[in-house]
Amino acid sequence: MNPLASWNEGPAKSAIFDFVARVTDERSTDFVPVARRIAVFDNDGTLWCEYPMQTQVYFGFAQLAGLVEKDPELKKRQPYKAFLEHDLETLHRLGKKAVFEFAFATHAGMTVTEFDAHARDWFESARNPKLDRLFLKCVYRPQVELLDYLRANGFKPFIVSGGGIDLIRAFAETAYGIPPEQVIGSSLHMKIEASGTTVNLRKLPKLHSFDDREEKVVNIGLHIGCRPILCFGNSDGDLAMMRYTMTGDGPRFALLLHHDDAAREFAYDRDFKLSPLREALETAAEHRIQVVSMAKDWSEVFV
Amino acid sequence: MNPLASWNEGPAKSAIFDFVARVTDERSTDFVPVARRIAVFDNDGTLWCEYPMQTQVYFGFAQLAGLVEKDPELKKRQPYKAFLEHDLETLHRLGKKAVFEFAFATHAGMTVTEFDAHARDWFESARNPKLDRLFLKCVYRPQVELLDYLRANGFKPFIVSGGGIDLIRAFAETAYGIPPEQVIGSSLHMKIEASGTTVNLRKLPKLHSFDDREEKVVNIGLHIGCRPILCFGNSDGDLAMMRYTMTGDGPRFALLLHHDDAAREFAYDRDFKLSPLREALETAAEHRIQVVSMAKDWSEVFV
Repeated sequence: MNPLASWNEGPAKSAIFDFVARVTDERSTDFVPVARRIAVFDNDGTLWCEYPMQTQVYFGFAQLAGLVEKDPELKKRQPYKAFLEHDLETLHRLGKKAVFEFAFATHAGMTVTEFDAHARDWFESARNPKLDRLFLKCVYRPQVELLDYLRANGFKPFIVSGGGIDLIRAFAETAYGIPPEQVIGSSLHMKIEASGTTVNLRKLPKLHSFDDREEKVVNIGLHIGCRPILCFGNSDGDLAMMRYTMTGDGPRFALLLHHDDAAREFAYDRDFKLSPLREALETAAEHRIQVVSMAKDWSEVFV
Repeated sequence: MNPLASWNEGPAKSAIFDFVARVTDERSTDFVPVARRIAVFDNDGTLWCEYPMQTQVYFGFAQLAGLVEKDPELKKRQPYKAFLEHDLETLHRLGKKAVFEFAFATHAGMTVTEFDAHARDWFESARNPKLDRLFLKCVYRPQVELLDYLRANGFKPFIVSGGGIDLIRAFAETAYGIPPEQVIGSSLHMKIEASGTTVNLRKLPKLHSFDDREEKVVNIGLHIGCRPILCFGNSDGDLAMMRYTMTGDGPRFALLLHHDDAAREFAYDRDFKLSPLREALETAAEHRIQVVSMAKDWSEVFV
């Protein structure tokens, strides 16, 4: 058995092995009981590709195409027009929250069960247009190995994502082995509906939580209820949860994936408007965050 | 090994054994994979005693005593006065949500870490006044056995309670073996605070979710993301999640504890204003809910 086979030898891989060895060694002063080995992972750009737009946005595109069939007038109005034309420049100008909120709104009205079936169906054929790969094949192999390695050492990994909680739940179990109850994300309000002999949850067109930046920490408090000891992110949207992770007692570990691999994936950071990496990169040393270079630290990128 | 040793032979115990046998038998058409063996339990009145008032309310009393020391004028105002005088009649008239919201508000302003330490400290000596037992000794032994039995059969049990999420997290791991991330409850809004080298979550004096009735189902959708297959409750506040549990596909099981044991605990149902049991009892047969009689089905009550 060769854990982290797709990770090159180097400071990042060594730091992972060192941390896991310390917290699992009962004789170590850094020992952490299994129940407290909580790890949190961002999803977009950390566990799978987020470029040129997060999968959530492409899912919104597809939803919108259906809405426009029913109401062609929508085509003329913004932001519908920008969505329909995949006008990234206009969408980038709107900003992440507005774009995501719009993408979420396109699937309000469905029950949670209907949404799940619909999302699973969409994932069967939906592809990242720049990589020309199925979104489900844009999952990072080294991260799947890391999740397996952490689980084998008693960790419980959670996803904490700005993406829609139900969209992530539709693939996270298959892709990462992470069950629905360990997925935290942005969410719409829901209402309960009893009709005849059945009771369902229906998604409402109103944002309940936009799980980005400080809100990620608030949602960790709500869903998990204890401070994680490991956090892996890739953008300034993850800095708050990295800082929260790093400032408790005992051993702590934060990692930041740097997309510096134009040959195999993409090279971007400060300039990616929908999820820039600037402050987290500049303050990584100060906050004892381990930077992971996709180009240098990973021998393989995709599953 | 004798699972459910504190359960008497009878229809409730048989129904539990039968359900668990069916969902864990790979040759059965009722087989459910481990990942979907999600069970939800109400807390107050289901896993421990809730009479004459939920522990949450007594915790509020204790908090309030501290506040009044600083501001004696509070003593003269309602609902402070009723709280301070343990005036149950007035509190019952206010209703569960108002009483709980007031109890939650008394601990706003603390960080989550401070609250946890404070609650654990309080539990060391706080007692149910009618039973004259430590609250931590008001846990029901048959339910601890049931939780152990379900876990041994691959179930993942969650608490879904109207009580404050952080108060339950302060004792649920020790009392029931249920970790913080498997506790869902009422919650206050929180904000993140970075001061110096540390980052904390602070509780705000504003209700985020009152986890009762329909809201229990909404929070199951948010936190768990799939429909449970087993639900155990004791009041009308649990009926919505019982109905949600019972109306999905495949095998399903709901249980309702009836407090009919004045000799060992209490006998109450319709008349308990803070959490009445009326509709759930009257419609139990229609909704295929297994009623559990504390007097008849349990040979022991407390741990």
